[in-house]
Amino acid sequence: MDIKKIVIVPDSFKGTLSSKQICEIVKSKISSSFPLAKVIAVPIADGGEGTVDCFLNAVGGQQIECETVNPFFEKMVASYGILSGNKIAVIEMAACAGLPLVEDRKNPMLATTYGVGVLIKDAIERGVKEIVLGLGGSATNDFGCGAAAALGVQFYNVKKENFIPVGETLSLVEEINAKGIIPSLKDIKITVMCDVDNPVFGPNGAAYVYAPQKGATPDQVEVLNNGLKHICQVVEGQLGKTVSALVGGGAAGAMAGGMYAFCNATISKGIEVLLDTVRFESLIENADLIITGEGKMDEQSLQGKVISGVARRAKKKGVPVIAIVGGVEGEIGSVYEMGVNSIFTINQLPEDFSISRFKSKENLERTLENVFRLLTLR
Amino acid sequence: MDIKKIVIVPDSFKGTLSSKQICEIVKSKISSSFPLAKVIAVPIADGGEGTVDCFLNAVGGQQIECETVNPFFEKMVASYGILSGNKIAVIEMAACAGLPLVEDRKNPMLATTYGVGVLIKDAIERGVKEIVLGLGGSATNDFGCGAAAALGVQFYNVKKENFIPVGETLSLVEEINAKGIIPSLKDIKITVMCDVDNPVFGPNGAAYVYAPQKGATPDQVEVLNNGLKHICQVVEGQLGKTVSALVGGGAAGAMAGGMYAFCNATISKGIEVLLDTVRFESLIENADLIITGEGKMDEQSLQGKVISGVARRAKKKGVPVIAIVGGVEGEIGSVYEMGVNSIFTINQLPEDFSISRFKSKENLERTLENVFRLLTLR
Repeated sequence: MDIKKIVIVPDSFKGTLSSKQICEIVKSKISSSFPLAKVIAVPIADGGEGTVDCFLNAVGGQQIECETVNPFFEKMVASYGILSGNKIAVIEMAACAGLPLVEDRKNPMLATTYGVGVLIKDAIERGVKEIVLGLGGSATNDFGCGAAAALGVQFYNVKKENFIPVGETLSLVEEINAKGIIPSLKDIKITVMCDVDNPVFGPNGAAYVYAPQKGATPDQVEVLNNGLKHICQVVEGQLGKTVSALVGGGAAGAMAGGMYAFCNATISKGIEVLLDTVRFESLIENADLIITGEGKMDEQSLQGKVISGVARRAKKKGVPVIAIVGGVEGEIGSVYEMGVNSIFTINQLPEDFSISRFKSKENLERTLENVFRLLTLR
Repeated sequence: MDIKKIVIVPDSFKGTLSSKQICEIVKSKISSSFPLAKVIAVPIADGGEGTVDCFLNAVGGQQIECETVNPFFEKMVASYGILSGNKIAVIEMAACAGLPLVEDRKNPMLATTYGVGVLIKDAIERGVKEIVLGLGGSATNDFGCGAAAALGVQFYNVKKENFIPVGETLSLVEEINAKGIIPSLKDIKITVMCDVDNPVFGPNGAAYVYAPQKGATPDQVEVLNNGLKHICQVVEGQLGKTVSALVGGGAAGAMAGGMYAFCNATISKGIEVLLDTVRFESLIENADLIITGEGKMDEQSLQGKVISGVARRAKKKGVPVIAIVGGVEGEIGSVYEMGVNSIFTINQLPEDFSISRFKSKENLERTLENVFRLLTLR
């Protein structure tokens, strides 16, 4: 096979190698096996840390620093990205509402997404027309009310007092006035990257599933879940938006649900948002090969994850896809129909993950070496 | 890649799949991936059970049944093969001197290779010009004296009494008279297939290393080792043959050493004997691909084993080799120079061998599927 152009677009191998590390390893192996090949690497970010970098790397642009607040309304400087062309801003909600910012002060009862709204507002004031919002790693459980407040939405309690709801005060919201929202927002397309299906509240909702890891006690989880249920009812009654059953609405302390309710945001699979934004179809134009991968491929992982997302688009363009994975389990025959040519696992020995996890780099290198050697056969 | 002819020549995956099973699995996968390809399968045998079948399968010929004796001089019928052309006989020493024949009567002090000599004699009387002798799985420790006796070599004790030495009586041999050996033997080329390096006696010799698994007690091991040392001295003094340091002379209860001493046998690596005998170079003529493999590839396994033997010959003919293995460990870069194009391990998950060993067939199938899919890419 004559290889002139290769696109690398791997998911991370959870617990061992980041997508960026994998891209570097693959690039290096390509440069020795196909020294003349043009290589485009698109490290994948799922909306969490590294998302802005990922988009900036893929399509260029600039990093913007912005004064905002952290999850406890304390002043901080956070950054986001504006992509080349100045039309699209990419914001990680974790940049000012993420768990790493609260460390030993974890408290989803009090944590706010207000700072995220400040970043969104800043981006809008700089003239962007689209905002991609990465959810992931949140410290909050405020239904995005903080962010909405920063954008001009007003929340009132039973005494008609204006306040910014946080987790523990969601149930105090009696009235929502969205009229004060910054006017230009209605022309802005907001897309949230979301790879979970959790609804806003209930047994699979934001509070029960995610609040404990954000520091909530069992009692607090109850309070948070009741608050989320309450705010949904208020939203549905006053804004006419149905959010209770919204798939993925529970992501990021239900900020996904709030962004949908207050800002008309679209909730989309992270990989689709990324591939759309980087204009993947044009990146793979004339490519001879796409290399993708993930930690473990199974029936579930073929739903809306990196490999399937990449393969479907590649198939339309007729570009072959090779998947390099940490493991394959179950019936994954459908992946070939999706557009994956072949799948190679990196395990060089029959070893438990507790041992092999420390060999991921060399195992990946060896696998690539052999796949590339086979490709040079004709 | 246009695949018209594939040769399959895999070693076994020790403890999971036999070479024959692997051949069947690969054949079946080829028939679905490359339905028009011509396939030649050469299951590998290393001199032990299955060796005769292997040769007969590979080049045709007939199975000969012959009256002989078992390791305890009891009458039995054993079989060997005469290959097409009637020039070459293939004999497994285990056919009448193998461990499975003695079961709960294991006793290397008494077990004899006499029956093997009977088979050799029978083959010679049928006019063959070459004998390939598979060592492996022996129940004996008699330096091949039994076989030599069957072929006419006479052994005497200090009282000038003629006897057939066995393990415990090797040290009684005072004189060897090789003049009575059947005359046609001098025109016969005898090759023993031997994949071990053990010398006849000493710490790495036949008795210390192999006699315990044949049933010898520690005391008996001493006796056997002393016997082997003694017979080597007699051989060296009276026949002028140096066998003490012979590499591989300790194989099969030192029958390898005896065959060298009494019958001018050549000791060769099993894979080389097989590939010579099946005329591997002509089998791979015009082949597009060779598929080989083994249970575990490491630096050691690259010395005189199946993959390296196959690769070296394939390289000379310019036929690419793909190795499918259960595992790869250590620095095996030299295998590419030997002629292996690429190596794929079958482990679909990071799992310990205690788990993955039960999945060898499906793991091999999946690996082949993906390798073949990659080969169809152009």
